[in-house]
Amino acid sequence: MPTSRTTVRRLPQRGHYDRETIVAILDEGLVCHVGFAVDGQPFVIPTLYARRGERLYVHGSAVSRMLKTLAGGVPVCVTVTLLDGLVLARSMFNHSMNYRSVVVLGTATPVEGAEKVEALETIAEHVAPGRWKEARAPNETELKATLVLSLSLDEASAKVRTGPPVDDDEDYALPYWAGVLPLALAAGAPVPDPRLPAGTSVPPSVRAWRRPRNG
Amino acid sequence: MPTSRTTVRRLPQRGHYDRETIVAILDEGLVCHVGFAVDGQPFVIPTLYARRGERLYVHGSAVSRMLKTLAGGVPVCVTVTLLDGLVLARSMFNHSMNYRSVVVLGTATPVEGAEKVEALETIAEHVAPGRWKEARAPNETELKATLVLSLSLDEASAKVRTGPPVDDDEDYALPYWAGVLPLALAAGAPVPDPRLPAGTSVPPSVRAWRRPRNG
Repeated sequence: MPTSRTTVRRLPQRGHYDRETIVAILDEGLVCHVGFAVDGQPFVIPTLYARRGERLYVHGSAVSRMLKTLAGGVPVCVTVTLLDGLVLARSMFNHSMNYRSVVVLGTATPVEGAEKVEALETIAEHVAPGRWKEARAPNETELKATLVLSLSLDEASAKVRTGPPVDDDEDYALPYWAGVLPLALAAGAPVPDPRLPAGTSVPPSVRAWRRPRNG
Repeated sequence: MPTSRTTVRRLPQRGHYDRETIVAILDEGLVCHVGFAVDGQPFVIPTLYARRGERLYVHGSAVSRMLKTLAGGVPVCVTVTLLDGLVLARSMFNHSMNYRSVVVLGTATPVEGAEKVEALETIAEHVAPGRWKEARAPNETELKATLVLSLSLDEASAKVRTGPPVDDDEDYALPYWAGVLPLALAAGAPVPDPRLPAGTSVPPSVRAWRRPRNG
């Protein structure tokens, strides 16, 4: 449900509040931008994340200033943005971008115990599906050195622009090309670690990686 | 110069403060994430931007809440993130991402007069080089409906991770594949506007679009 803080005000037709739209964007993204304030100064920091059920997880070093600040219960904003294309209109004014973004507001809480390991697995599987079983699981020391935070999706909204440019009526006669240049994140050829034994086969998490997963 | 607010604290070897590194990242990115607080709640909003000299420009509707808030002189953080690859280690703990990000702190100021049009041209040319001359320039009404803000790069820092995973010594004997899966933004085939006359040729800004420009 939109709250007064998550209602899209500018171009309200771009606002979406249904779970399906929000979840699809969160599940396709890789990096979120986490916003928080320290002494009145906002900071915006990129980090990996994952969604599970109605929660977002982020993780990092237990001594990270960002995570320690968030764990203190300050208000946070987590934004995920997928850039889908450049919208090129006949007028400069009507240029735009096609994108899908989600904004989540709330306060984060530390995750402990069994849920902590599950959250780390969720993040690994979100970033590279299948990877959790292809690497050594975290040991106790590593778990202690890792802080995992959880944020509810209760206060979330999406903003989406799709489709061709929209020009002013009188501009359609102008001789300029108009349309959309689609953009997407693409994977290149995997680069093996220099210390990897020759002939180590590329695993499914790497070989089959793509975004969106079924796109 | 790094200030106490822009000094990279975690993994300080990833911090960079030289102009060349910061400018290269800003000039390659397309979308920035703008962080600001309203009544103590941070918001993080994606938007297009461009750099010119020692300033960043963002623009949007003159009635945008974000831009009006920023124009009021509140502290802002603008972050640009380039995701270069997934870093897949032998241990889950040492998984990471290769990325280049810039964080700019400061306060934004409205841009007027000749600099306003120049800033809009800078943004257009940043997003799609060559586009400014391929579309109708903004008229007076459109300029009035557009707010352009400028932010100094005085307080900026970059954070960069490159290269292969770094595993614990004892993990190098594990039989897991390790390496980097490179990621980059890629353009698809241009999609002409449905109302475009047949045979309108695709212009250089679209045909030759790539990021990084000389990559």
